[in-house]
Amino acid sequence: MVERYALSPMKELWTTKANLERWLEVELAVMEAYEKLGMIPAGSAEKAKKNAVIDLKLFEEFEKQTDHEVIAFVKMATSKMGDEARFFHYGLTSSDVIDTALSLALVKACDLIIEQLDKLLQVLWKLALEHKETLTIGRTHGVHAEPTSFGLKVLNWYAEMLRNKDRLLYARRQISYGKISGAVGNYANVPPAVEKLALEILGLQPTPVSSQIVNRDHHAFFVFTLALLASGIERIATEIRHLQKTEVLEVQEPFKEGQKGSSAMPHKQNPILCERLCGLARIMRSYVSVALENNNLWHERDISHSSAERYIFPDATQTIYYMLVKTVYLLENLVVYKDRMLKNLNLTNGLIFSQKLMLALIDKGMSRSEAYDLVQNLSLRCWKTGESLKELAKKNISILNEEEIEKIFDPREYLKNVDEIYSRFGGGWQS
Amino acid sequence: MVERYALSPMKELWTTKANLERWLEVELAVMEAYEKLGMIPAGSAEKAKKNAVIDLKLFEEFEKQTDHEVIAFVKMATSKMGDEARFFHYGLTSSDVIDTALSLALVKACDLIIEQLDKLLQVLWKLALEHKETLTIGRTHGVHAEPTSFGLKVLNWYAEMLRNKDRLLYARRQISYGKISGAVGNYANVPPAVEKLALEILGLQPTPVSSQIVNRDHHAFFVFTLALLASGIERIATEIRHLQKTEVLEVQEPFKEGQKGSSAMPHKQNPILCERLCGLARIMRSYVSVALENNNLWHERDISHSSAERYIFPDATQTIYYMLVKTVYLLENLVVYKDRMLKNLNLTNGLIFSQKLMLALIDKGMSRSEAYDLVQNLSLRCWKTGESLKELAKKNISILNEEEIEKIFDPREYLKNVDEIYSRFGGGWQS
Amino acid sequence: MVERYALSPMKELWTTKANLERWLEVELAVMEAYEKLGMIPAGSAEKAKKNAVIDLKLFEEFEKQTDHEVIAFVKMATSKMGDEARFFHYGLTSSDVIDTALSLALVKACDLIIEQLDKLLQVLWKLALEHKETLTIGRTHGVHAEPTSFGLKVLNWYAEMLRNKDRLLYARRQISYGKISGAVGNYANVPPAVEKLALEILGLQPTPVSSQIVNRDHHAFFVFTLALLASGIERIATEIRHLQKTEVLEVQEPFKEGQKGSSAMPHKQNPILCERLCGLARIMRSYVSVALENNNLWHERDISHSSAERYIFPDATQTIYYMLVKTVYLLENLVVYKDRMLKNLNLTNGLIFSQKLMLALIDKGMSRSEAYDLVQNLSLRCWKTGESLKELAKKNISILNEEEIEKIFDPREYLKNVDEIYSRFGGGWQS
Amino acid sequence: MVERYALSPMKELWTTKANLERWLEVELAVMEAYEKLGMIPAGSAEKAKKNAVIDLKLFEEFEKQTDHEVIAFVKMATSKMGDEARFFHYGLTSSDVIDTALSLALVKACDLIIEQLDKLLQVLWKLALEHKETLTIGRTHGVHAEPTSFGLKVLNWYAEMLRNKDRLLYARRQISYGKISGAVGNYANVPPAVEKLALEILGLQPTPVSSQIVNRDHHAFFVFTLALLASGIERIATEIRHLQKTEVLEVQEPFKEGQKGSSAMPHKQNPILCERLCGLARIMRSYVSVALENNNLWHERDISHSSAERYIFPDATQTIYYMLVKTVYLLENLVVYKDRMLKNLNLTNGLIFSQKLMLALIDKGMSRSEAYDLVQNLSLRCWKTGESLKELAKKNISILNEEEIEKIFDPREYLKNVDEIYSRFGGGWQS
Repeated sequence: MVERYALSPMKELWTTKANLERWLEVELAVMEAYEKLGMIPAGSAEKAKKNAVIDLKLFEEFEKQTDHEVIAFVKMATSKMGDEARFFHYGLTSSDVIDTALSLALVKACDLIIEQLDKLLQVLWKLALEHKETLTIGRTHGVHAEPTSFGLKVLNWYAEMLRNKDRLLYARRQISYGKISGAVGNYANVPPAVEKLALEILGLQPTPVSSQIVNRDHHAFFVFTLALLASGIERIATEIRHLQKTEVLEVQEPFKEGQKGSSAMPHKQNPILCERLCGLARIMRSYVSVALENNNLWHERDISHSSAERYIFPDATQTIYYMLVKTVYLLENLVVYKDRMLKNLNLTNGLIFSQKLMLALIDKGMSRSEAYDLVQNLSLRCWKTGESLKELAKKNISILNEEEIEKIFDPREYLKNVDEIYSRFGGGWQS
Repeated sequence: MVERYALSPMKELWTTKANLERWLEVELAVMEAYEKLGMIPAGSAEKAKKNAVIDLKLFEEFEKQTDHEVIAFVKMATSKMGDEARFFHYGLTSSDVIDTALSLALVKACDLIIEQLDKLLQVLWKLALEHKETLTIGRTHGVHAEPTSFGLKVLNWYAEMLRNKDRLLYARRQISYGKISGAVGNYANVPPAVEKLALEILGLQPTPVSSQIVNRDHHAFFVFTLALLASGIERIATEIRHLQKTEVLEVQEPFKEGQKGSSAMPHKQNPILCERLCGLARIMRSYVSVALENNNLWHERDISHSSAERYIFPDATQTIYYMLVKTVYLLENLVVYKDRMLKNLNLTNGLIFSQKLMLALIDKGMSRSEAYDLVQNLSLRCWKTGESLKELAKKNISILNEEEIEKIFDPREYLKNVDEIYSRFGGGWQS
Repeated sequence: MVERYALSPMKELWTTKANLERWLEVELAVMEAYEKLGMIPAGSAEKAKKNAVIDLKLFEEFEKQTDHEVIAFVKMATSKMGDEARFFHYGLTSSDVIDTALSLALVKACDLIIEQLDKLLQVLWKLALEHKETLTIGRTHGVHAEPTSFGLKVLNWYAEMLRNKDRLLYARRQISYGKISGAVGNYANVPPAVEKLALEILGLQPTPVSSQIVNRDHHAFFVFTLALLASGIERIATEIRHLQKTEVLEVQEPFKEGQKGSSAMPHKQNPILCERLCGLARIMRSYVSVALENNNLWHERDISHSSAERYIFPDATQTIYYMLVKTVYLLENLVVYKDRMLKNLNLTNGLIFSQKLMLALIDKGMSRSEAYDLVQNLSLRCWKTGESLKELAKKNISILNEEEIEKIFDPREYLKNVDEIYSRFGGGWQS
Repeated sequence: MVERYALSPMKELWTTKANLERWLEVELAVMEAYEKLGMIPAGSAEKAKKNAVIDLKLFEEFEKQTDHEVIAFVKMATSKMGDEARFFHYGLTSSDVIDTALSLALVKACDLIIEQLDKLLQVLWKLALEHKETLTIGRTHGVHAEPTSFGLKVLNWYAEMLRNKDRLLYARRQISYGKISGAVGNYANVPPAVEKLALEILGLQPTPVSSQIVNRDHHAFFVFTLALLASGIERIATEIRHLQKTEVLEVQEPFKEGQKGSSAMPHKQNPILCERLCGLARIMRSYVSVALENNNLWHERDISHSSAERYIFPDATQTIYYMLVKTVYLLENLVVYKDRMLKNLNLTNGLIFSQKLMLALIDKGMSRSEAYDLVQNLSLRCWKTGESLKELAKKNISILNEEEIEKIFDPREYLKNVDEIYSRFGGGWQS
């Protein structure tokens, strides 16, 4: 992981220590289950817990010896145990521990992500409310289309993030599976009842049928959900980058005191955070193909997914976490220039009202193609000469009176249904 | 799309004609909505429906003229209409029609896919039941691990496909959204009530807030779901390819009468269908990055997604449909060699029972590392000399009696929990 | 392939007929080689050529029978041959024919692509020359940076396309390999001399060592080269989309007579071609992962690459061909608004000259940080009040005289090294 | 980067310290160039070099203050300089330093990679020579095809790696470009002569035309080359995984003393290194799409590539370096079981000689289809009954005498052209 994008507490989730602790948590839950089922002496689990050792140095030493992480872990963990050591890792295969612990980590990561996403939803809703009536030009193909509200733009992001939250909750269920089912998933040396009890203790579900591992479609789904979330952030960041262009300048990302935009050009205030987020979205996308390829393991498992997962799980969860934290900051502190929005709205001398004008003509009985041609002609003249389309309309169109024309060219008319759109979200985000 | 992989009825979904018909369906639903709301003269929709023209030649001609598909479509559709033409496409922007019609197509595609997936589930469940007790060797890292049942392998696929079905149902909801909200999504020229009624007629939901289009996260999710499903098929196909290798030969994909395996080697029966499915899974994977990139459109939309979607929607849905149809055929007609499975099970002279042996020693009071070392030594001898591990155990281990050792080396012991695993799926697939 | 993006002559390269004809070309070249080596009766090749049949219907029929393309092809091709049929496909394995013919197709495709790339280079060079002195603002982070020439922007594209041409020539060599070496590449049934002669006739090189096929790293490289070329086009298209934004409007993509920009807004002139090119670049990118995955075939070959290649080779070559043709048209007819460029250059009231000002102060002996702070302060005032930075400088900086300040704020100063940059390309493109 | 896959000396290339040192190297080269051109006082560069400070703590502190890496670097580097500080970073924009230094890093990384690739070539050549005559079965579709030599398999890898080396040398040239051309690439504040001299000192070429940065197509090409190399390693690793399967067991990857294959099954020797390499190849593939997306920056540059490159350059170069080092180890110590290869060769009772038999019949005058049918019938019988195809041939085919049949069924016949194939590589790898 790139150090500068690793934030607490997500960062701490992926240390070797945290990993070993999760493994221990799984082993102890299994012992507890055995004990509850009367399969090992009462008190073994308690004693094991008390005497269990987590010692990174020892672990590294054993790993060097054995070239096998779980064997090294078991040696380390039981290094100060008494007889209860016999029941530690009893009947288990390495993957029972590793894969179940991985689910613990991913569920925790998912919760941290949802927590930030909730903050983002809150900020977006607030911003959307604040700018419900803020007039701005809607653009398609980068070209002025029709007036709209800046809040509606934000509400669109809000709606996408709501969908992302729903997907994340779905994905969370998909990665909440553990397995304590042995080397090939048939409970040869550990009864299903142990799995059931142990996973209950850990807050996980048993996967209904496993191979040596939990199948990787569960994980691929989670990774994709994060990448899709990242692309939603990319969309927000891209919009801000556009709106911060010198010629547009309708919004600006926050600019810290003392921050310098350029070593060469002291005046520059660049949307570098937004650009950074766009770059990170590319990174997030790239994990999906890896996760999908990892699904196709040989027979009851091969371990090719493992090296790849050492990259993608820590990096994907930390990167999206960073992106969320920064997007919350970005939107909480976004500078919005309403005046400039209004000024830009008028840049085309009224061309943006052309469709409304055309429809009004149709309403008065003109055929669609006739109306289209008339409006297009006036538009082209307006475009070339810089004359106001409203004035041209007044002069050249007799079937509409002045009042009607004024109404057509009133940008606030475009906000008439905005309330209804907002109302679909009920009270929106409740903090 | 590659012609040879295009199957009916999915294929017909993506013809220009089908596309124009869906556009017309949307336009007429909108007119009906206008009419119901009393906004246009009663009977207009009916008349429009009666007089609407779908004529590919005319369409192409108009498109060449205007370089704009929807304008060409409107001209074609209304070419024989009377006054009702005035209300055709009234207040709409092209994307109201295109995007809503696209959702109709994707929902229909999704249903066809689910239909085949249901067939696959049925076949998998049948195969899993049939081989519930079929002994086979479980393999990890491609190396013999422990005995298991062939049915369990199949049940694992079944469980993954159940998850895929659940994801597809989720994805279907995600793409069941239309929008009739105008050029920038604020209902400037068409009231929300029209959208609500029109989409109801079409069986879709209004997207709570839209830009000019339905946001592309909906679509990306659907495309990913298909790719994940494809990777599940790839996993099945890869397993069969492995099991059909000359040295293994536990299963074979069906071989048609008259089919020739090789122009050079008349004896060869190659798993070419499985290999084909693996190749197609790569194709399916490749669509995901496109769909994710398409989410990041500029402002209230740019049209860069459109050219890309002309490839990925028709090709992804047709390819996965082909894959499903072929996988159903493959598994319905799979040749399973139970005898060879048993023969392969015994290839290692009993080494595969080593863990069971070790655990029995621990049960008798030996420490884990002592038991491990003892079993590893016997195993290495068995490995090198070809002696039977069971016989070596009988000769060298005194704390286990003959009966106990026989039980340890009985492969059927590994099936003892298979019933319980199956029971988790209730009655499984109900045709 | 998407019909609307399939252009001649690239399109004709990928028909079934063209494919069968290439197979025949290979078979006949092999026969000729056998004959030259005295291994088959003189005149056989000639007779075979005369009597060979290409008949699509027959082919389809045979393929249905045998489920094997090459066997079906051989049956069709030899269906009217006499005794010479014995030497047709003699000693060959299917892949000898298929893979060698594929190289013929790819080399031909590569040539067509290079032909269009040459046209693009020509157009770029012309445009670069035309606008060598056209002042425009250089932008970084979307924000005004320093003046530059529009021609230099184009020259940058030109330079990238020159690199792309060099890569394509390299890639062409990489796919100019055939193989006539039998089922596993060891010339078991065909001597190396036949391969050498036959490939010479076909204009290809023998791959120094083959499996059943030419290794797929050759092909992956070619596919990547096309994707990289596509991303260069995407960069051009993105720039134009930016420059065509309503607030910027420095260039416009060509707009055909009669073309309509929007069914709703008659005034809109949208960069739809550029957007289309951007979408297609995503498609081109997606082929790379498929091509890379295809490299990892099992043993002496599996056929999983084949289904995938039915998509990616025809689609990638046709799509990039379309992109090139359209980019040539785009740039040949690009509308450039020099006046608007000048107008935009002055939007920041001289802030863009801040670095030059700072450096002049350092030249006069000020420390870097002192100069930086002074210029930043003036810049911030200019930014906030709209005052001209030049006037502020004149008023507030005494160590620079008026003439010096005028020179600092002269945008043409930024073009002083443009000639030298152009000179690096010699005479540039020679038509 | 994943710590456990980070090896020296590649690892040290990507520390913050190494990075700052490269920046300093660039700044000093620029000062030296200025000095040589008489633009700054003689001795300035020398003094700057002597007084320059690299101090990570100071750097971090300044970066926190300014939120700008290069400004922080300049403050740190010049913190103990005298008047020469005025000429430090003079006329430069941040990217002049960053991008030029990046090229230094990538070139160095490329050299380290080529160094390991050379070792791999050496090992492959040795292994290929050693097994030139080692008979093994060639497999297509995972099914036995025809005999071949194990050395030839290795030689195929060798040939691919030779191509990879050629591509790397090409890629090295592509990333050997620096730029000292200012904020938008037009040498506004630094003359081209300075760039030329400075880059000469650094061993780089000036990019003929730059924006603020060296265009990212250069870098994308390099990243792809690494991914393609990785997929070549994946192919080797996949082959070994196949050959190490319990039923095949023709080779084994090295197994360290004390290493444990499984916590559960003491006998297991798993190809975990090969599986790890396969997983890492997926990771390497995933970088390509990021690098391609990075090419499409806005205008004269946006910085979105930067965050992404913080992942992909260090991780891609370190990962491929690890893969190469491990593949060298793997192949140097590969265990090859020649006896098992011979045993497996005979598994099909002679079916693998069927094509040779068919061709001999054609040579004797039989028609192709007659011969094919006859051989296929005998083959099917051999397949079903386990009879030897040779014996069946002797009994059922009269136009071939016993001696001829013996020759047909002699596997060494398949090696007759192996020498010629090897000879194409001259003396192969010269240590």
